[in-house]
Amino acid sequence: MDAGAWQRLGDYLRETQLLGSIQNTLYWDQNTRMPVGGASWRGEQLSLVARELHARQTSSLFKSLLEDAKAELEKERVSGDLTPSQDLQKSCNIRLLEQDFHRQERLDRVLVSDLAEAKAIGYNSWQNARASADFLSFSPALARLIELRKEQARQLAEPRTCWETLAQPFEPDVTYSRLEELFAPLREKLPCLIERVRTSNAPLERKPWDLSVSAQQGLCDELLAEWGRDDSISCVGSSPHPFSITLGPKDFRLTTRIVSGQPFSSFLATAHEWGHSLYEQGLPSQRHQWFAWPLGQATSMGVHESQSLFWENRVARSKEFADRWWKRFKKVGAPIESSKELWKLMNPLTPGSNRVEADELSYGLHILIRTELEIALLEGGLEVDDLPYEWNRRYQAFLGLKPKNDVEGCLQDVHWSEGLFGYFPSYLLGHLISAQLSEAMCNDFSGASIDSADPIAKFVSEGKESTLLEWLRVHVHLHGRSMNAEQLVESISGKKLSSEPFLVYLEKKLNLLEHCS
Amino acid sequence: MDAGAWQRLGDYLRETQLLGSIQNTLYWDQNTRMPVGGASWRGEQLSLVARELHARQTSSLFKSLLEDAKAELEKERVSGDLTPSQDLQKSCNIRLLEQDFHRQERLDRVLVSDLAEAKAIGYNSWQNARASADFLSFSPALARLIELRKEQARQLAEPRTCWETLAQPFEPDVTYSRLEELFAPLREKLPCLIERVRTSNAPLERKPWDLSVSAQQGLCDELLAEWGRDDSISCVGSSPHPFSITLGPKDFRLTTRIVSGQPFSSFLATAHEWGHSLYEQGLPSQRHQWFAWPLGQATSMGVHESQSLFWENRVARSKEFADRWWKRFKKVGAPIESSKELWKLMNPLTPGSNRVEADELSYGLHILIRTELEIALLEGGLEVDDLPYEWNRRYQAFLGLKPKNDVEGCLQDVHWSEGLFGYFPSYLLGHLISAQLSEAMCNDFSGASIDSADPIAKFVSEGKESTLLEWLRVHVHLHGRSMNAEQLVESISGKKLSSEPFLVYLEKKLNLLEHCS
Repeated sequence: MDAGAWQRLGDYLRETQLLGSIQNTLYWDQNTRMPVGGASWRGEQLSLVARELHARQTSSLFKSLLEDAKAELEKERVSGDLTPSQDLQKSCNIRLLEQDFHRQERLDRVLVSDLAEAKAIGYNSWQNARASADFLSFSPALARLIELRKEQARQLAEPRTCWETLAQPFEPDVTYSRLEELFAPLREKLPCLIERVRTSNAPLERKPWDLSVSAQQGLCDELLAEWGRDDSISCVGSSPHPFSITLGPKDFRLTTRIVSGQPFSSFLATAHEWGHSLYEQGLPSQRHQWFAWPLGQATSMGVHESQSLFWENRVARSKEFADRWWKRFKKVGAPIESSKELWKLMNPLTPGSNRVEADELSYGLHILIRTELEIALLEGGLEVDDLPYEWNRRYQAFLGLKPKNDVEGCLQDVHWSEGLFGYFPSYLLGHLISAQLSEAMCNDFSGASIDSADPIAKFVSEGKESTLLEWLRVHVHLHGRSMNAEQLVESISGKKLSSEPFLVYLEKKLNLLEHCS
Repeated sequence: MDAGAWQRLGDYLRETQLLGSIQNTLYWDQNTRMPVGGASWRGEQLSLVARELHARQTSSLFKSLLEDAKAELEKERVSGDLTPSQDLQKSCNIRLLEQDFHRQERLDRVLVSDLAEAKAIGYNSWQNARASADFLSFSPALARLIELRKEQARQLAEPRTCWETLAQPFEPDVTYSRLEELFAPLREKLPCLIERVRTSNAPLERKPWDLSVSAQQGLCDELLAEWGRDDSISCVGSSPHPFSITLGPKDFRLTTRIVSGQPFSSFLATAHEWGHSLYEQGLPSQRHQWFAWPLGQATSMGVHESQSLFWENRVARSKEFADRWWKRFKKVGAPIESSKELWKLMNPLTPGSNRVEADELSYGLHILIRTELEIALLEGGLEVDDLPYEWNRRYQAFLGLKPKNDVEGCLQDVHWSEGLFGYFPSYLLGHLISAQLSEAMCNDFSGASIDSADPIAKFVSEGKESTLLEWLRVHVHLHGRSMNAEQLVESISGKKLSSEPFLVYLEKKLNLLEHCS
């Protein structure tokens, strides 16, 4: 057996991964420490690394290493040197690498470089447009990004629509018709639920209040300590927008931010970002030295989001969690006199025009609006200059409100300014996947004689979140990219992914909240 | 005129500089935020970047770009298209680039890679040896580094001794005999000065005291604000060992650390590191888009150190500075009742076994010991295993004390563990250069009718440190690598560098301190 080819491919992937993680380090620093003056040079550093990464991912050396490894695998198969599971894993790695290679290979260098430049210009123009609340100053940059992305889809020449092609890196194998199937029930039922809340469940009235920075930091530290953060492999920073990022096999970073007047913002963002980080920490890369192989990577942004939402919504926003934590909030200055109060304050369910601050009920509608609009921009002939009008029209129709201006409207998200089209649905898929996995988790625990109607609630109330994590590790994290999101959900829950568990979960929560009033 | 060659070379240098600044970003993060678990992957990232940097610096493309630019310069010279100053600058850039290229080119790749590996092993082994206070566990790694460095000097094949060859990157054109000339008076006179202090100037007695972390941070922030720190181009972090580093033309970082029981440590380290940073901020790179050209870079580590020492010793440890600051120290909890007290506490002048914590009097002796020893290791046949004995013997002879163990002795500095031989003298040269430049600065101000025996003291007492900075900018910083350290000092002071101004300064300080008792 010629053991060399697989090893040589692995060494090459490892170097590519080193370069990718250098990119991540630059990004982390850019968002946590870099002074504003450093932006332009940092942009050049990032662009250099991006060019080198693309060159590595499309090099003839990579191609021949891939062919050699495939030939070696074939030989091993013929000579019976592989267990079925080794065969499956190696084949899967090769298949995904070939897919990624062919995708990169089809793009010409000029386009890659033009896109990098257009992203930098777009992001910059978006920031300026926000500062001056002037959408039209941003529209040329956005139009350029749309044109380049369309060209990218043409070059990729996949048997998919333009928008579907661009969505693949975030959500492999996603199709528009399947999304429609999944999202249609939400489009129908979420507005009814929102209406029901408006009439029956008045938000808790409070004089404006806040928690001190140190109180919020203390609560976040306490949360992460209880949830098992190991400071020898992770660190917490602060940044304008919270994020989670992996810089190495044993180097996980997350950030949070303090938002004035929003005493739960940093706490819930910490729970959310830690959920992302736990997924990355649990990927098989760590246990099998596969950090650089496809099987050691996250399978989709939807699954990633399901993990963050699980810890934020299922755990931190639950009644049982409030039972355990309300006194700690009170102790550091929150005007809270009961568990119920903390719970209701953490679940306001009041629609607004901002996606990031949206509650679980209205969140889906924000995504439906964006998905419709980006498909219209890429495939439906919607002119960029008409975007604000179409945005506002849909907010009125879906959520019954009109953004005060474009900064609160179609300039609120960074994604399009960096040419990220096809990304938004993953956020909503994350809600559906989280709900369906939670249901499966409950069934699994009930099957294992956990005597409770809601085993997740039971473990949370007992402070045994580590049991929930262990379940996610085994059932979700360890599979890496061996299955796509839908396959993963079906293999775990025994059912095709649907919006039902999410809607059931929401209704149950509403019932509880009403009961609680 | 073919304008292309110079521009193409500049573009190439710019990419090399981008890569170098990525290396610096990784180093910054490693020392300020990285969790310990990230160390091994970070080592691989750094090694990848080091290999790419070496490949770029020795590539045939670089060689031909350099030749083309040189030919273009020749043509311009012939056709009279250049002003004398342009000619001088371009010639100087080409000469330095050729020198650096030939130096890199002579090294074979195996050696470069072996050295990178030996450094990583050496650093690791040094840390372990310190943890277990076991020098012998470190000696094989040190022996390997010495062997590789000797090989490097052989490959470089310069008309210099081995030690001199290795010292060139830190102190261009340095020779051993010149160093002897400069340092001999110190070897003779510093022990007398130390003896004089011991008999005449008892250190101020204080019950152990400290300042809170927030008080120290507050004082450091205040210092940097007064010294003009612009937070749009700089940021301050914390790290186990304070350092200053440049990540981009408008991105300057420095760190400090809080040392328990040493209430002035963070403050003086901040002054010191800010001095380094001011030099980098003032390099012509910033004004002439020369960030990537030799003329835009620091000329030597000795000059670099002279800048940090100026702000630390000449300014922050001065009597006039104490006059302005003692109440601020008192206000945040220091048991200080007068300016004199602060001044004396900041100038303890008590010899110890630690170089980093050494005062201005004994500092030089620490360097003389290291310089003798590294020359003995590289050229004099000193066996690695005999290093602790020779170290301790010299500490007894020079400073009249014996380190308690090797951790406080020959394991205290990181330099040799990373194969840095030839670096130490720059620290002491920094003291000499700082003193000679300060003398020149005073003469210059006196010549400009500043009516004071000590114009530096006068400006400090008036809080006009910006005037001192402006002088350094024009006379020191703006010259970049156009002159080596000695040429720079001579061009500014009109005299060859010598130890005299430093010894005069020390005597004056001692007189003042004695007078003050």
